[in-house]
Amino acid sequence: MHIYPTPDHPHQMTLPAVVPFKPGNPKSRLSCVLDERERSLFAGAMLRDVLEALHGAGCDPFVMSTAPFVLEGEQVVVNPAGLNESLNALLNVTHGPLLILMADLPLVNPLTVRRLIRTKEDIAIGPGRGGGTNAIFLRTASCFRVDYYQASFLKHLRIAGERGFSCEVIDSFRLHTDVDEKEDLVELLIHGTGESRSYLEGLGFSLSIEKGRVGVERRTD
Amino acid sequence: MHIYPTPDHPHQMTLPAVVPFKPGNPKSRLSCVLDERERSLFAGAMLRDVLEALHGAGCDPFVMSTAPFVLEGEQVVVNPAGLNESLNALLNVTHGPLLILMADLPLVNPLTVRRLIRTKEDIAIGPGRGGGTNAIFLRTASCFRVDYYQASFLKHLRIAGERGFSCEVIDSFRLHTDVDEKEDLVELLIHGTGESRSYLEGLGFSLSIEKGRVGVERRTD
Repeated sequence: MHIYPTPDHPHQMTLPAVVPFKPGNPKSRLSCVLDERERSLFAGAMLRDVLEALHGAGCDPFVMSTAPFVLEGEQVVVNPAGLNESLNALLNVTHGPLLILMADLPLVNPLTVRRLIRTKEDIAIGPGRGGGTNAIFLRTASCFRVDYYQASFLKHLRIAGERGFSCEVIDSFRLHTDVDEKEDLVELLIHGTGESRSYLEGLGFSLSIEKGRVGVERRTD
Repeated sequence: MHIYPTPDHPHQMTLPAVVPFKPGNPKSRLSCVLDERERSLFAGAMLRDVLEALHGAGCDPFVMSTAPFVLEGEQVVVNPAGLNESLNALLNVTHGPLLILMADLPLVNPLTVRRLIRTKEDIAIGPGRGGGTNAIFLRTASCFRVDYYQASFLKHLRIAGERGFSCEVIDSFRLHTDVDEKEDLVELLIHGTGESRSYLEGLGFSLSIEKGRVGVERRTD
């Protein structure tokens, strides 16, 4: 992995940012409200929102997809291996820094990304709800290894500690909120501003209030 | 409501911070894992964590309780009225700024509080999960009114807009995470550092992994 100079600033290094993506039957926990085609389009819209935030923060993002996948104007590399295997293979060959950002974070904006990459520590981690890791910025990527699934946030803190890396935990609900379940759509309809929110609204989704709680409902025409 | 000089800095104004609290049968959605006495003690521990964060950020907190309630070393005022009524009555008589912070935010630390009160805008809002409002900093409290329940975050944005107030939305999972349900305890056991986490651990709670998801379990001796 190389750090790319950009056309506008041929001598400036921009930060590579990898967004892992699995195009086949995505977001199955949303099956109760979206059919398979809709889930696929919705996952693509969330991915584009994430890439937009990364571009906005001056990063050089690329998608690491488990299967061939075309995304106009974006770089896509294909690696069918599992998340840990493909990311660790990438870390091994990366000189310098790298940002890893998950694809299902449609609330993330350029400001959120900047908080990650402007850390003064060796590593910045954005925890996800339920013990996950939604973002990792690594100043020296080749010295780290990732270990996702099952309270990965705590595992990543431990790995950082074992390697003597200082670590900042980024306190951001935009990074914390990965969209997996129906109730997560509430957050998107309240705080989202991008393509994935528009896609949901186009399908007829809106906020609803039931027994004092906020939920989502889908208009059936 | 007055802004208090502190003994150490008699000429410095410290920021009053109100923490609404309802001592009777609190946190009923945790009944599946905590009995009424435990819920009451747990709610008190979370309240103390919130007050600790406020003290740590240099605020002058007081509890606004719906019923008489003793909390050693802390100021408690009693107002049996509903949340909106009691807070709006307080806003009416408050000169200068005020911070309103909910009592069930045990992940909040002094840094989080500082992000709220150091805003450059007229108002800073910390949204809660599901459209709620977990924190509001008001530079001129008497010019605002609160309207909690049912997507109150959007209502508070609208009220700010109607009054011509500039508003910053604080992007913080520590403010976003109010502890209401069993799955929220996962966040506390991962990110908490205060009394409420210790209380849960003392009862035998720990993280568990089931079907790849992180949950909590309670040891039964």
